[in-house]
Amino acid sequence: MDFKNLHPADVADQLQRMPVEEALAALRQFSKADAAAVLAELDEELRPRLIEGLSSPELAGIITQLDHDEAADVVSELPAERRPEVMAGLPTEEKKQVDTLLVYPPDTAGGIMTDQFIQLDVDQTVEQCLQMLQGKADETEGGISYLYVTNEAERLVGIVSMRDLVFRGRQRTIGEVMNREVKHVSVEDDQEKIAQLFEHYHYLALPVLDREGRLVGIVSARQVMDVMQAEATEDMQLMVGLSGEERALTPWQQSIKGRLPWLCINLATAFLAAAVVGVFEGTIAKWTALAVFLPIVAGQGGNAGVQTLTVIIREMALGEMTIGDGRKALIKEVILGVLNGIAIGVLVGVIGWFWKGSVLLGVVVGVAMLLNMVAAALSGVLVPYTLKAMRIDPALASSIMVTTVTDVAGFFFFLGLAAIAMQWWPIK
Amino acid sequence: MDFKNLHPADVADQLQRMPVEEALAALRQFSKADAAAVLAELDEELRPRLIEGLSSPELAGIITQLDHDEAADVVSELPAERRPEVMAGLPTEEKKQVDTLLVYPPDTAGGIMTDQFIQLDVDQTVEQCLQMLQGKADETEGGISYLYVTNEAERLVGIVSMRDLVFRGRQRTIGEVMNREVKHVSVEDDQEKIAQLFEHYHYLALPVLDREGRLVGIVSARQVMDVMQAEATEDMQLMVGLSGEERALTPWQQSIKGRLPWLCINLATAFLAAAVVGVFEGTIAKWTALAVFLPIVAGQGGNAGVQTLTVIIREMALGEMTIGDGRKALIKEVILGVLNGIAIGVLVGVIGWFWKGSVLLGVVVGVAMLLNMVAAALSGVLVPYTLKAMRIDPALASSIMVTTVTDVAGFFFFLGLAAIAMQWWPIK
Repeated sequence: MDFKNLHPADVADQLQRMPVEEALAALRQFSKADAAAVLAELDEELRPRLIEGLSSPELAGIITQLDHDEAADVVSELPAERRPEVMAGLPTEEKKQVDTLLVYPPDTAGGIMTDQFIQLDVDQTVEQCLQMLQGKADETEGGISYLYVTNEAERLVGIVSMRDLVFRGRQRTIGEVMNREVKHVSVEDDQEKIAQLFEHYHYLALPVLDREGRLVGIVSARQVMDVMQAEATEDMQLMVGLSGEERALTPWQQSIKGRLPWLCINLATAFLAAAVVGVFEGTIAKWTALAVFLPIVAGQGGNAGVQTLTVIIREMALGEMTIGDGRKALIKEVILGVLNGIAIGVLVGVIGWFWKGSVLLGVVVGVAMLLNMVAAALSGVLVPYTLKAMRIDPALASSIMVTTVTDVAGFFFFLGLAAIAMQWWPIK
Repeated sequence: MDFKNLHPADVADQLQRMPVEEALAALRQFSKADAAAVLAELDEELRPRLIEGLSSPELAGIITQLDHDEAADVVSELPAERRPEVMAGLPTEEKKQVDTLLVYPPDTAGGIMTDQFIQLDVDQTVEQCLQMLQGKADETEGGISYLYVTNEAERLVGIVSMRDLVFRGRQRTIGEVMNREVKHVSVEDDQEKIAQLFEHYHYLALPVLDREGRLVGIVSARQVMDVMQAEATEDMQLMVGLSGEERALTPWQQSIKGRLPWLCINLATAFLAAAVVGVFEGTIAKWTALAVFLPIVAGQGGNAGVQTLTVIIREMALGEMTIGDGRKALIKEVILGVLNGIAIGVLVGVIGWFWKGSVLLGVVVGVAMLLNMVAAALSGVLVPYTLKAMRIDPALASSIMVTTVTDVAGFFFFLGLAAIAMQWWPIK
């Protein structure tokens, strides 16, 4: 395959479609700088398997060509025992900087930020800064927007735009031209929270401060766009019992490890629902038409519950759900559950009546449907809020839990009501 | 409520939590400029209801304070009959520019781009450009990265960074310092495709060209971050039968309109599944234990199918699924379906055997489970690809369709196998 003139991101795409050995061979054809550019673009699924195949000197050679934040990402994907060997191959200064970044968990501001930014002193003149910038082609190449001003204690005190430098008097000091109102994030902030800030306030870049208020990095829209997509993928996947990182072409050997445990948990919950049916086996034996309506009561409740759940999970991810909002949402969902329940309940009841020729069946299935729609509304809101209160990701297996509630509640209401009704109005 | 010192985005958040009348009264307290800033931040759910309550002169006054792209968004949310009246209140030049933007569908490059960018001529000197920029505080305030160079025919011929202007000789022409390799998008490009480009290549801004190759606007990471979140929300919601734009606090009157039709469609599909059970009512009458296993076969298949579906839908949204990838994914999913099916099938079979004391039941439920897991894999891949081939959003109601397949197939395999088996080995 010819990789010439391809953007590194496109080369990475090609490699991701190859067996690991082939991808490794292709990567070795590149110069170190090119290999580094491709490595930076590989997704977190192939990259660990690829770097496993590289020798430590090879890897160190490539890593020195990476930005520090990407170097740290790559090193963190290595098995712990290989890290010291690879790190030893880096130049001292770089090793130190990568080590610093390795401390931060990957899903925090510290984990996603870049440590490449331009730092100015309050006392410098604009002229001095312009001269300094002229020498820093690398860092300013990508269309830099802001420069960050720190004091002797490395604390962030202001920001300056390129525009400020160009159009304000050259003899003025940075302290005079800078903007002192600077929004920032803390190095420990969760990446999801940062994505929310960027979307809410339309930032293009935010400085990252450590606990002591020192400027340690920058998070820009480049990183945040990746975070947004990764977080949305994670939420969608966690809801249904996937790893959160599975890709369509993830090898099945790996996918099965992520999926099978959740399928087993789903199975356990399905048996819970089946047990409820089991309790009423005698009722079904007397009136087999009931069995026909089981999938309707459960399926409809499940769909309604997952509708509610999806709205809540997504809103939580977009960062706009206070506890008060949760209360309002709960009321709204219960109203919707009752109204949709009445509409669907009447519809199902009438169909049930005509199909099986029994008013009683119609009434029982209709009322059960209404009750299950309310159960769906309650579980759709309460499951994610409960998970959140337990400091678990609110998306985690939430869809499995909600459908368990609607299955169990649906069967219980439907078969329970039928059993009671049959005591008063015996069938046949 | 005191809105002083609040960011417009936070004011918008507050208004979204109020009844429309209150929000309207609050909005009227602001200056036109402040009201415009808040209006720009409101979500697409409240804003149409809010602007309905404003008089046309009030609205025109606020709209003139908005950037053209936001003005166009607001105008497009008005009922068609009110638009001319509001537009008539705008200054002529602005009216023309807003009219131009109104032509583009909201989910295309033209619909999301801004028409505020800085245009340079090839023949200008760097000195001339710097002088021009000095006068344009507004457009350069937000930390501008690139300036766009066009020729006499308004065609885009290059880009220049602020850095190029500052550090290259002031007597050189723009044509000499500009970068001629410029990526761009077309005004008709879908916003999802643009989000994919930004994420894939880490762009921060891209110029938008019309059919004739003329520069008509800029899409930046600011807009793309909104698009990414909106598209992810839409996919998650469409899958389960939501409007794609519902928020947690959308009034129930509006939510019910979005959800009830899909619940009715889900009901129709549930009856399809019920009809399959109905066909085998006689079989269940002979062996009621079968009814107990219905939710297990269906629930497990549904979960597995939605797992596959979620991976595929998300990958399509991230823009990395060719037809060839679809084929590979199908093979992978079928392998997973068979393997997960064997694991889950054996497990369910053994539990069924011990629970109900019947080897036959165990075998039937185990085999049905295996077959349904394969059906789940097939439908999880084929449903979204079929929708895509029909030029329908692959997410649309896809979860409802996949669970219909797994319900119908699951019941058919399970009850069908049971009916056949019972002919050979009669129960009791």
